Amino acid sequence: MPKEPVLELTEALIAQPSVTPADRNCQQMMMNRLEKVGFTCTPLPFGEVQNFWAERGETGPLFVFAGHTDVVPTGPLEAWESDPFTPSVRDGVLYGRGAADMKGSLAAMIVAVERFVALHPQHTGRIGFLITSDEEGPAVNGTVKVVEWLRQQGRQIDYCLVGEPSSSESLGDTIKNGRRGSLNGTLRVKGVQGHIAYPHLADNPIHRALPALTELSQIRWDEGSEYFEPTSLQISNIHAGTGATNVIPGVCEVVFNFRFSPMVTDAELRAGVEHVLKGHQLDYDLTWNLSGQPFLTPVGELVSATQAAIRQVTGVDAQLSTGGGTSDGRFIAPTGAQVIELGPLNASIHKLNEHVRVADLALLAEIYREILERLLAAADH
Amino acid sequence: MPKEPVLELTEALIAQPSVTPADRNCQQMMMNRLEKVGFTCTPLPFGEVQNFWAERGETGPLFVFAGHTDVVPTGPLEAWESDPFTPSVRDGVLYGRGAADMKGSLAAMIVAVERFVALHPQHTGRIGFLITSDEEGPAVNGTVKVVEWLRQQGRQIDYCLVGEPSSSESLGDTIKNGRRGSLNGTLRVKGVQGHIAYPHLADNPIHRALPALTELSQIRWDEGSEYFEPTSLQISNIHAGTGATNVIPGVCEVVFNFRFSPMVTDAELRAGVEHVLKGHQLDYDLTWNLSGQPFLTPVGELVSATQAAIRQVTGVDAQLSTGGGTSDGRFIAPTGAQVIELGPLNASIHKLNEHVRVADLALLAEIYREILERLLAAADH
Repeated sequence: MPKEPVLELTEALIAQPSVTPADRNCQQMMMNRLEKVGFTCTPLPFGEVQNFWAERGETGPLFVFAGHTDVVPTGPLEAWESDPFTPSVRDGVLYGRGAADMKGSLAAMIVAVERFVALHPQHTGRIGFLITSDEEGPAVNGTVKVVEWLRQQGRQIDYCLVGEPSSSESLGDTIKNGRRGSLNGTLRVKGVQGHIAYPHLADNPIHRALPALTELSQIRWDEGSEYFEPTSLQISNIHAGTGATNVIPGVCEVVFNFRFSPMVTDAELRAGVEHVLKGHQLDYDLTWNLSGQPFLTPVGELVSATQAAIRQVTGVDAQLSTGGGTSDGRFIAPTGAQVIELGPLNASIHKLNEHVRVADLALLAEIYREILERLLAAADH
Repeated sequence: MPKEPVLELTEALIAQPSVTPADRNCQQMMMNRLEKVGFTCTPLPFGEVQNFWAERGETGPLFVFAGHTDVVPTGPLEAWESDPFTPSVRDGVLYGRGAADMKGSLAAMIVAVERFVALHPQHTGRIGFLITSDEEGPAVNGTVKVVEWLRQQGRQIDYCLVGEPSSSESLGDTIKNGRRGSLNGTLRVKGVQGHIAYPHLADNPIHRALPALTELSQIRWDEGSEYFEPTSLQISNIHAGTGATNVIPGVCEVVFNFRFSPMVTDAELRAGVEHVLKGHQLDYDLTWNLSGQPFLTPVGELVSATQAAIRQVTGVDAQLSTGGGTSDGRFIAPTGAQVIELGPLNASIHKLNEHVRVADLALLAEIYREILERLLAAADH
């Protein structure tokens, strides 16, 4: 009995140890399949990052599948129940790094398109693929650069489906129709180093920082909205100390991150933090890095088609969400495209023993195909 | 013109690069000198640490000079104005690692005893030397072991002068007649690691720890006393974070230190910290290390003799202090001895270009000799 085609391709992709920014042979495998069903493929390497653009169709609305072939590092190999780059099916579950994030989605996209094109060789509009190997890394030479290349080519994306693992409890229960913004701050609170036995000759930057950080961690920045959770500040790193137990350090370094809703701007958040730091009369350096502005795709053609497709294939009523991490959708949404994310369950992503339910792979391909049916099949009917 | 004898011996000791726990030839040089004036010397090596005990006299009160031949590391050699192990006199100041902490004191002790014995060959009481090469290191195989050996020998120290650099602005302005206790705590506040975009699935140990640490850093533990500054808590190290900006860490590690007066016990401090941590409902591990109990030598024969000797030699009225770091006095005081510390200016110790005023070396030897005059010379008069 031949293997289910989405599972087969997912396994082939997992077998490529494409730890970010490596692609190995993943994109070539995808392009080979797409060219067979009439896509024109354009490799778009930037720096050490592999990307490609593929397109089928001449005119009309442009529907794009977006995704990435790179995966996060495995963590300790001995802690995996099976080798992360040797796909292994146990009890109806496929294990391997990238199974859920997002080689399963890539395979489902390919199979969905193959089936859709077979059914509708003269479909309306255009189908594109925007694939990078730089989503889990610095995200500099990936989707950003391809979007810029598309702009130069005069191509405007109308609908974009990013294959990020959006589902929570069951396949299709959640569609991401936007993302919170992400703003990173790196804070250096300055004091004066000295011997711990002479605290009056030193100025302990940890003691200086503590009340300000406590206040920052307890502020409610906004109340969120229909589509967005309240803005969240999290301190991810704090480091001070020479390692010696008898030295008051000179600097306390803090890294924090906002995930923010459109109810507040990044400028307001920056000002709010500075206000707290100044209120505590700290001597500090603070640098900011805006990873992404929040974006939202309200209910419209793409969201409606996706909800209908999910309901048809799985019977599930999909919820809309803007929670979770950032994705490359943040680079595509500003072009004016409707952008959603839909993929398998995300509980195991970035963890040991990452996995996806085998049955969900075939279902996901069907959902993707049904979305195309709703948006691009009209001409054949 | 022959060199001033304290300077000459200090230079010879500095030329021995005895970075802790090394002694090089320092103790042998000291023993050679002491044996010439009638001391019986007993090398007491423990592990890699060199120590010796020397004693002169048969009965009566036992006065002990205590000190160490080891020095702290030099730091970057190129930052020294002259080689740290090549003694160099410039503008009346002797430069070299150990010049102030405490090879100058060791040389002053030797010369003081040589002169005292010449003047009072039949002095009353006994004179001892307790010298280690493990004061700047772990302090495990040094004074602690020699004190234990003395106990086994049935020897009880009555007066102990530790040659630690106690002076602040001018030689003899400060006598340390006790030390605060030192209690180290290592705290691990536990949370749940997770992706920063899903804070409700994680439990940020930094956010958990901040209010408790803020409270701990602001508590006034006692008011101090006539002899002691108020107890001080200092957080010396805080570390949390994986380095990644998108991960909430699982643990926040904190190292803190109490310098505490006898107005509070280490048990009370431990209980106070636990009370705060439990009040904030933290999940934590906490380990304690008591480096030393506080001790105090109130005004009595030793303090009075020392103040009188300083006044006679320098005209300075010495202040009593229990400030500053720990010293090996903490191991000797519990035997019931009166313990003080008196040595040169401490501004340059453990730093680059450590130094001592040349004139202070000769003065220090005279002060030490005058102390012996007051406590042990009676029989000759």
